[in-house]
Amino acid sequence: MQHGAAILLTLFAIFVAAQIGAEIAQRLRLPGVVGEIVAGCAIGPSALGWIKPEQILAGTPLDVLAEIGVVLLLFSVGLETRLDDLKKVGKSAFLVGVLGVIVPFVLGSLWAHGNGFEWTKSLFVAAAFVATSAGITARVLQELGVLSRIESRVILGAAVIDDILAMLLLGVVTSLQGGGSINIGSLLFVLAQAVGFVAVIGWVGTSIMRRRAHWLDRPINPLSPLTIALAICLGLAFLSTEFGLAAIIGAFLAGMIASEMHQREELEHQMQPLLALLTPFFFVITGAKIDLGVFASGTALWMLLVVTVIAIVSKLVGGFFGALSLGRRSALIVGVGMIPRGEVGVVIASLGLAAGVFTDQIYAVIVAMSLLTSIITPPILAILLKRQRDDEPAPAGSRPGD
Amino acid sequence: MQHGAAILLTLFAIFVAAQIGAEIAQRLRLPGVVGEIVAGCAIGPSALGWIKPEQILAGTPLDVLAEIGVVLLLFSVGLETRLDDLKKVGKSAFLVGVLGVIVPFVLGSLWAHGNGFEWTKSLFVAAAFVATSAGITARVLQELGVLSRIESRVILGAAVIDDILAMLLLGVVTSLQGGGSINIGSLLFVLAQAVGFVAVIGWVGTSIMRRRAHWLDRPINPLSPLTIALAICLGLAFLSTEFGLAAIIGAFLAGMIASEMHQREELEHQMQPLLALLTPFFFVITGAKIDLGVFASGTALWMLLVVTVIAIVSKLVGGFFGALSLGRRSALIVGVGMIPRGEVGVVIASLGLAAGVFTDQIYAVIVAMSLLTSIITPPILAILLKRQRDDEPAPAGSRPGD
Repeated sequence: MQHGAAILLTLFAIFVAAQIGAEIAQRLRLPGVVGEIVAGCAIGPSALGWIKPEQILAGTPLDVLAEIGVVLLLFSVGLETRLDDLKKVGKSAFLVGVLGVIVPFVLGSLWAHGNGFEWTKSLFVAAAFVATSAGITARVLQELGVLSRIESRVILGAAVIDDILAMLLLGVVTSLQGGGSINIGSLLFVLAQAVGFVAVIGWVGTSIMRRRAHWLDRPINPLSPLTIALAICLGLAFLSTEFGLAAIIGAFLAGMIASEMHQREELEHQMQPLLALLTPFFFVITGAKIDLGVFASGTALWMLLVVTVIAIVSKLVGGFFGALSLGRRSALIVGVGMIPRGEVGVVIASLGLAAGVFTDQIYAVIVAMSLLTSIITPPILAILLKRQRDDEPAPAGSRPGD
Repeated sequence: MQHGAAILLTLFAIFVAAQIGAEIAQRLRLPGVVGEIVAGCAIGPSALGWIKPEQILAGTPLDVLAEIGVVLLLFSVGLETRLDDLKKVGKSAFLVGVLGVIVPFVLGSLWAHGNGFEWTKSLFVAAAFVATSAGITARVLQELGVLSRIESRVILGAAVIDDILAMLLLGVVTSLQGGGSINIGSLLFVLAQAVGFVAVIGWVGTSIMRRRAHWLDRPINPLSPLTIALAICLGLAFLSTEFGLAAIIGAFLAGMIASEMHQREELEHQMQPLLALLTPFFFVITGAKIDLGVFASGTALWMLLVVTVIAIVSKLVGGFFGALSLGRRSALIVGVGMIPRGEVGVVIASLGLAAGVFTDQIYAVIVAMSLLTSIITPPILAILLKRQRDDEPAPAGSRPGD
């Protein structure tokens, strides 16, 4: 029982720290995840030390809990992603998404290579610059009650395309870590494999689910749609690792597939308690892995400043030019809306750390950058949207945040 | 990523096996947990071997997941337990509960001691004979639509008293394992400590919660009541281990405290997905720990038969005499309703195995006994209740199972 007691105390400490952090962040009008990561940093080895370094190594119970948490998180992001909705926002969102990936990826790799990383590792670092956090952006737009505006739909559509491209990039750069140098043939093979997996699973899965979701009503078990969705989530998470992709990619695809169920809303509702219990472990442990000692040196702080500026400017430029057809003001809103990296950037950084590609310094800098972009975006977006809203009547269908 | 991939495959296998097992069991009109335990037995080391023996040792990720699962399960059992409801069923339920604990405990310890266990260990083994599964009984009564009948209320009230007494017993016998022999002074101290912890936490906690639940409405986080309840659950689970009690006792008390929240129904609803994801790990791993090789010998099968008969007869007698004031027929129904051991008996057996008190043989026998009692009760109860229902009109307030 002693071992059980120790782990229970740690679980309790992590869970409570996450709640306190999230609550403080939300009272400061910041995303809850920011508070959870900072809480993890506070109780982690480099500050209070309530979490010991050996407790968060790969394969430990806390690591597995964190992995389940992030798998469920990406599943729920996928659950909010419908292929049809993507098609509707169409060209602008696609352009914003693609430019919003290319510009940060190129600038990110140049910066990383300029800082002494070899090319394959630079590409991995750059992948953490790429992903817009659909979750944080959606939450801000929802709280402002502007989800139905054209800019919001473009941002969310682009964030999704962004996520998919980021997942693809992640798959490619992860697979590249095996060989030392970039070989065009193997690059194409890896790219084809990643694209193929995503396309086949995403397309076949969603179309099967669209036609066959009524099968799920039959079994006796009243929670069947949920349990089946969770089984698909775990199954595809595993399968994607077999294709050299991150587990979260499979989870994301599983979510996209499950979003075609007609029980989707119930499913989103049922996911909430699961996310409430398990995602704190991911974010707190992500924070706990930040070695605060890194920032004792001026170099790291300087690096953080440069990285954050690159991250902001590259997304802003990509988003702005992608959305220029909506007019300059709207394009600016879209550009700003694409800035927050939030959970996906953090996830990629934690994968990089686990794979041994990221040093402690670059990990700490990238996670801190993700936090900073998530912290500064909500207020700027609120100002821009409010100023514009004063000029025009509120569109129908906008609703207050819940 | 490789380690992550392996654990994901195991999680997937466990989760899917549990769903298939539960589904088959339910189609056979058996409790779902029976199917989950059998599924665990099937994919465990002694059959298919999809779960490796080293994956289910104490402190491994699967063990921690199972522990979280059982903690949440006992929390939700506690959530269905309201002090006020207990007071209402009153004397009959109390008598049934107490006799239903004493008779099996005495017979169980005599049998265990007769089979070569020293007294302290015999008492631990006997504790696994004691606990009626409120979950299984409630589910059967609910499916039969007779939850509002007097027998049902007595059974459920008694099952709760039973659970509390079993938790107390478990606390006492666990603490006794330290010393080799029973010393009246230390026995009394342990008893006082266990009773004191349960009484103080249960009483103070519920009365604070009753008066102060409106505080929980205030925070911004929309899931606050759930997250606070989960924090209390993890916190009390840890705290009870500090008092030498099992973690599940604290979780059960946390559930009782949370049942005083006015957000109780919402909480019960939110617990469902958590139980759906996490309890399968507990039951499958419980099944996986059964060494089927044990039953290759005739002795074990014979032992299983004897243990099952003792378990059935002792509960039937205790329940029957406790409820005699309701009339013989009703007393018989109550006695039968108390038979299933289900999850709590299994939990105690798994604690005994972890503590090194139970041998592989006695563990396998006790878990198999719990399964058998859970398998035979539902049909007998259905026959008895149906026959009686044919004689009298259905009482108002009975509802079909959902």
